[in-house]
Amino acid sequence: MIPLASQMVEPGALEAADLREAWRLLPPEDRVEGFRALARGDAEDFFLDLSSREQAELESLLPPGERRLWMRLLPPDDAADLIQEADEEERPALLDLLDDVTRTEVLALLAYAEDDAGGLMNPRFARVRPDVSVDEAISYLRKQARERLETVYYVYVLDAEQHLLGVASFRDLFSAPPDKRVRDLMSTDIVTVRETMDQEEVSRVFAEHDLIAIPVVDAERRMKGIVTVDDIVDVVEEEATEDIQKIGGMEALEAPYLEVGFLDMMRKRVGWLAALFIGELLTASAMGRFEGEIARAVVLVVFIPLIISSGGNSGSQASTLVIRAMALGEVRLSDWWRVMHRELLHGFAFGWVLAALGFMRVVLWQGLFRAYGPHFLLVAFTVSGALLGVVTFGTLVGSMLPFVLRRLGADPASASAPFVATLVDVAGVVIYFSLASWILRGTLL
Amino acid sequence: MIPLASQMVEPGALEAADLREAWRLLPPEDRVEGFRALARGDAEDFFLDLSSREQAELESLLPPGERRLWMRLLPPDDAADLIQEADEEERPALLDLLDDVTRTEVLALLAYAEDDAGGLMNPRFARVRPDVSVDEAISYLRKQARERLETVYYVYVLDAEQHLLGVASFRDLFSAPPDKRVRDLMSTDIVTVRETMDQEEVSRVFAEHDLIAIPVVDAERRMKGIVTVDDIVDVVEEEATEDIQKIGGMEALEAPYLEVGFLDMMRKRVGWLAALFIGELLTASAMGRFEGEIARAVVLVVFIPLIISSGGNSGSQASTLVIRAMALGEVRLSDWWRVMHRELLHGFAFGWVLAALGFMRVVLWQGLFRAYGPHFLLVAFTVSGALLGVVTFGTLVGSMLPFVLRRLGADPASASAPFVATLVDVAGVVIYFSLASWILRGTLL
Repeated sequence: MIPLASQMVEPGALEAADLREAWRLLPPEDRVEGFRALARGDAEDFFLDLSSREQAELESLLPPGERRLWMRLLPPDDAADLIQEADEEERPALLDLLDDVTRTEVLALLAYAEDDAGGLMNPRFARVRPDVSVDEAISYLRKQARERLETVYYVYVLDAEQHLLGVASFRDLFSAPPDKRVRDLMSTDIVTVRETMDQEEVSRVFAEHDLIAIPVVDAERRMKGIVTVDDIVDVVEEEATEDIQKIGGMEALEAPYLEVGFLDMMRKRVGWLAALFIGELLTASAMGRFEGEIARAVVLVVFIPLIISSGGNSGSQASTLVIRAMALGEVRLSDWWRVMHRELLHGFAFGWVLAALGFMRVVLWQGLFRAYGPHFLLVAFTVSGALLGVVTFGTLVGSMLPFVLRRLGADPASASAPFVATLVDVAGVVIYFSLASWILRGTLL
Repeated sequence: MIPLASQMVEPGALEAADLREAWRLLPPEDRVEGFRALARGDAEDFFLDLSSREQAELESLLPPGERRLWMRLLPPDDAADLIQEADEEERPALLDLLDDVTRTEVLALLAYAEDDAGGLMNPRFARVRPDVSVDEAISYLRKQARERLETVYYVYVLDAEQHLLGVASFRDLFSAPPDKRVRDLMSTDIVTVRETMDQEEVSRVFAEHDLIAIPVVDAERRMKGIVTVDDIVDVVEEEATEDIQKIGGMEALEAPYLEVGFLDMMRKRVGWLAALFIGELLTASAMGRFEGEIARAVVLVVFIPLIISSGGNSGSQASTLVIRAMALGEVRLSDWWRVMHRELLHGFAFGWVLAALGFMRVVLWQGLFRAYGPHFLLVAFTVSGALLGVVTFGTLVGSMLPFVLRRLGADPASASAPFVATLVDVAGVVIYFSLASWILRGTLL
């Protein structure tokens, strides 16, 4: 219940900070009660800082007479997000709470897919005509700001048909001679995104260009809105969370961990567990084919988990690296050959290290406990050889699987650590026992 | 070589877009040549869009006479980042290229740890005194902007000793009556961060409050600079990358995948592989203790990979979920009991599903191939029982390990999928064979 020490809080605001801290743990009635007990100004800040999901929940719990007030506090993009989080049947009522202008804007935003630039953008931005002077532009913007402007950072220069001609930062405008024309000041080399661009790609454009806001245009270059970088922080968090969960071997939860119910959790996780289980059944079949060898050389069995998990571990390293490098745009589909070359080399090097460790383990245990009989050196060679093969193979498969998935149009992040490990386990069993029956034939086998 | 279709490019700018696209693949000489061939305006944008690492590389390749120009293009925080990326011995020369004011600012920034708010902030921000009027403030800001102001979005109100008194957005300022005093307009309920706050925590403050910029203050609440949200996008990307790489079972690379050299890659990856290998050696020791059972019931051996990998998979799901939920602040240390409760339930449910699948597999193969002899039902019960135990245990260990690591002051992301799998493998072997010797005593064993 202690607010972040380093986030200074005014004495009067302590109540809001306490509520924020306790929010997750409070039952719905207590949330409403706590919220309504806040001073008006605090309550506004509090409401604006909630996630869209939390705002929608709170709206549905408030008495109907109080809802309009909070709904109208939101800019159109945030209102659209709230409505998207609300239950289907509540949406028309929520739309009715908005004023006419905002309702039209929100309806236009709701028509876009949630994950598109159009679904992310704010339709309110600072705009001027190219032929006004800097002084005229500044006083016009002062008027716009008073009315309904959300974000003032860049000023966009549009013609009468809303085509985007140029952009000026406030800094440009402020530092220019007052009688200069906006046309002579604006930059025409503008980074834009299309309204249908996926949000993950939008976030890469932001990362590449270090901008505060990017204009969203349609196919005719008519400006529709702006995406601001603060929305991109959420996108980046969200996309990373999805990738991390997929890498962990499950479907993305798409909600905070503690808010996902039992059945939903089952659905997102047990499907992958069962699929991996069925894949792993192949190891049982593969080993069934070596039952004779197993019966004759039980000593080989104790190294099975060691060998297959080494392959799995090297595979998860490689796939995780490649998945993340792809998500960041550092590695593209066309780089597969270069990556394969690198990872083959890495895998081979790692393989030698583990093979040496494995060899030492067998020889050491033989010296200490006489554990592996007269042919212990052959056992050591078998174990080391299998490790070298399995680790090289695991690294190779792990690094290439994300490319294969992306090539097939699937999400490379599905090449999860457990998925790669399962693939490599089966190969590991085959490599190990094939090598064993070749090296140990006539001695142990 | 095709620029992003949706990112409209002016005809003259095509060259820069081509260069950007090819950059990664070009040898150093060609980079310099391509860069120097750009028109001045294009080259400026191009340079500003490069990462600090790329800027530092390019600087070191340019003829000494041209370096000053590009160095002086950078605001102090970016200049500090570039210098941090350069080789130790080049840094003094780079500092000498800056003008005196900027050099002082950069030196102050370099004194902060790179991952602190202080290392992230920009020391240039818009400031006014509390007693000026709105109109005075605006014309004063126009003067500041002309000189050396970087980001104009919020205006900070400071007293003579630089203590932060309040903040006003440009929108507030623009929409206020011209003769109102800034003191009567500013908001005093300000979110601030301390100069020593870790950047990951700073990014959480941004996520919570949806701000474009947050002021950085010292222990006496004197304002030192601002952190802007565009820098936070990079922080969020970077932190997610580190977590993903740790979850994949390696050290964080801290550089783009394709730029990490062979030896560095070995160091970051093979250490973990070897550690996991040594952990996994315990499976060999554990199985050694069951050699008698193995020799008598080879049929049990074929299910070993299946059983231990099911435990590993359920463990990676749980640990990945908890790691990410912790990084997002959704789950805190004090939630361990709640998470344990949930995951025990989940693990038990998953365990029953996999146990049922395992039972069916044994019975089916017996029906089809008579694979497991007269005691096949006992084998089926052993396999199912081990699956139930291992999956429940794996889920529990996977979900609790991140809590243990955080409690010990370590990074929860080190509870990687391979690490959890290794822990669970050893337990899996013990659970499986203990159960087998109990169920099958007197029949198979």
